[in-house]
Amino acid sequence: MIEHLESINKAFESKVRLGIMSVLMVNDEIDFNSLKELLGVTDGNLASHIRALESLEYVVVKKQFVGRKPKTTFTRTEKGEKAFQEHLQALESFLKNNMSME
Amino acid sequence: MIEHLESINKAFESKVRLGIMSVLMVNDEIDFNSLKELLGVTDGNLASHIRALESLEYVVVKKQFVGRKPKTTFTRTEKGEKAFQEHLQALESFLKNNMSME
Repeated sequence: MIEHLESINKAFESKVRLGIMSVLMVNDEIDFNSLKELLGVTDGNLASHIRALESLEYVVVKKQFVGRKPKTTFTRTEKGEKAFQEHLQALESFLKNNMSME
Repeated sequence: MIEHLESINKAFESKVRLGIMSVLMVNDEIDFNSLKELLGVTDGNLASHIRALESLEYVVVKKQFVGRKPKTTFTRTEKGEKAFQEHLQALESFLKNNMSME
């Protein structure tokens, strides 16, 4: 693989996942509906990307009841934070290499 | 969708496609085997990503014979070049926003 592409994390290839992690880096916790609105995605789309990030242990899903209403919230894990930062750095290196080609 | 993510081009989400376009930006033409080796991918994987980029008119596939041997080469189109540059700029903006959060 050409330089800098190796470190790009396939888990973050989708822009919905970039968006999820980006939001979770600045919000210690966010609920399903707020995240869905921020990203402008459907329930199903968000749920499927969250499941993938959860199975990689990048995100923790918490389900609780507020009164009688169920509420789902997400937080990043330390592992997820580290992986995302490494991914951003890999993208940055890739960009530096490509921008200088123009 | 949160700022800067909108302009990220789904066609370039895969790092194999980032690699293909990156190589085609600096090589006016490259043959199948050289590109495959540069990217460290399988025949099938490269072929499927090339087909996707070809159907978007980002890449042109040329098949010719060199003596009796078939040779497949690729070039970027103007449309592909423009789309890739816009994608890089979108990534750059996304990174700037996220790096400053650390």
